[in-house]
Amino acid sequence: MTSYIIDKLYDRVEKRGVVCVGLDTALDYLPEHIKEGRTPSEAIFEFNKQIIDATFDVAACFKVQIAYYEALGLEGLIAYKKTLAYLREKDEIIIADIKRGDIAATATMYAKAHFEGEFEADFITLSPYMGMDSIEPYLPYLERGNKGVFSLVRTSNPGAEDIEYLDTIGNKKVYEVVADKITEMSKNIKGKCGYSAIGGVIGCTYVEEGQKIRANYNNMFFLIPGYGAQGGTAEDVALYLNNGNGGVVNSSRGILLAYKKENREKEFALCAREEAIKMRDAIKKAVNN
Amino acid sequence: MTSYIIDKLYDRVEKRGVVCVGLDTALDYLPEHIKEGRTPSEAIFEFNKQIIDATFDVAACFKVQIAYYEALGLEGLIAYKKTLAYLREKDEIIIADIKRGDIAATATMYAKAHFEGEFEADFITLSPYMGMDSIEPYLPYLERGNKGVFSLVRTSNPGAEDIEYLDTIGNKKVYEVVADKITEMSKNIKGKCGYSAIGGVIGCTYVEEGQKIRANYNNMFFLIPGYGAQGGTAEDVALYLNNGNGGVVNSSRGILLAYKKENREKEFALCAREEAIKMRDAIKKAVNN
Repeated sequence: MTSYIIDKLYDRVEKRGVVCVGLDTALDYLPEHIKEGRTPSEAIFEFNKQIIDATFDVAACFKVQIAYYEALGLEGLIAYKKTLAYLREKDEIIIADIKRGDIAATATMYAKAHFEGEFEADFITLSPYMGMDSIEPYLPYLERGNKGVFSLVRTSNPGAEDIEYLDTIGNKKVYEVVADKITEMSKNIKGKCGYSAIGGVIGCTYVEEGQKIRANYNNMFFLIPGYGAQGGTAEDVALYLNNGNGGVVNSSRGILLAYKKENREKEFALCAREEAIKMRDAIKKAVNN
Repeated sequence: MTSYIIDKLYDRVEKRGVVCVGLDTALDYLPEHIKEGRTPSEAIFEFNKQIIDATFDVAACFKVQIAYYEALGLEGLIAYKKTLAYLREKDEIIIADIKRGDIAATATMYAKAHFEGEFEADFITLSPYMGMDSIEPYLPYLERGNKGVFSLVRTSNPGAEDIEYLDTIGNKKVYEVVADKITEMSKNIKGKCGYSAIGGVIGCTYVEEGQKIRANYNNMFFLIPGYGAQGGTAEDVALYLNNGNGGVVNSSRGILLAYKKENREKEFALCAREEAIKMRDAIKKAVNN
């Protein structure tokens, strides 16, 4: 029987809670003592490593936002590669937040780039604008069990209204059409946990629809942005979960920069851990209420 | 007065025709004699360099598809960087086909990655699924004049039907909503040529709508995929142009692999040139008919 990566993620949430630590690491996030005597890629990797070591047992997974690394060119991508290798070595689950979206031969190249080789991740995020043939090329990887994707569905930004929220004449919003299509596409690649290998990015900032979305897409595992800085609370997040599972909740700057609130530069990793625990416990409490 | 990159592209089309040479360079596209004695990145760069040297005077611009380079990890991205640097050195116009789509701080990082530094291009392609706040962060670069973007609007793949073609209750298709919004957003960043700094990716494979789309979005410069292998003919393409300008027509494999049709491995660059000229002239003829 195929063993699915989504089951591993589900189990991690059971054991460690729903927090996904976002490694959106910009150079100017780093404390001075981390930068001193290091090249940019060494400094970024060292920061990430200390964050990972301090949070892995209280986090379900790590999301690495590739834009931050691309912004530094090859030097940044060396740090990206080393961060992914370190996570893999520790058997931590990696979501590469790349939001790629292209078709045919090009999508196959992206699959090769991010499911194999130097930039190998467990999950990647995809954008569905071009249609389902921009998701299909990843299916062979998903069917083998060890890889998964999260398609953008309904994001947490104000601009979500522009396209995702458009009402179509079929009485569905664009994001619902996307969610229906990926549900259909992934119905035969479900793990023991009941969730499929194609998850959805579902922001927690439109509260009124949380319960409806959770109920309508009950086999879809959610990658949930929008917590904290974007306004999502623990109570909002709870609506998007099934008894505290069925999704992971990302926090990037909230965790990475927790040290800045208290000027505890030297303890940045401990501050990150404290913040992750606080977040995990707040969501657990909201789920149990 | 601001000098816009779109005017430079318009002028190139006037002088050299509408062909955009797509450098979607996979390792297995390379003739044996190019691979011999070279590392992968050296071989890919050498191939690209010879293609560029053989086609630049008959091409408006070059589109580099980053997926092909990402697929080879850092080694591929070294070839990507060198290819962009070579094009810049020759004052050729670069469209980086990256189809990124993200918001706020992340989009700013992508702008930094692809409008500055090692991976600097003149134009980048973007995906609008998340809404207009995934395009806005690029505006400061566009307003300065020397950069442009192409947003996905209506692509050439069959899957375009899934999302882009959905009818909304406002009596527009999703792609028309996107086109309206980017037209509005770019109305104050227009070049002397009349086209704005935010172009649209408009495939030429849905022929019946060509004239309508051209007429409705008359200030939008088109990046047109779908010619050749995907079924678009010179006559189809002509419908999307204004007297032979207002767009560039991409061909990647059709040009790069022209040598395979005739087993002229050693003359791959000459074959690419012949193919580009054939394409340019066929479209010119169709425009004049």
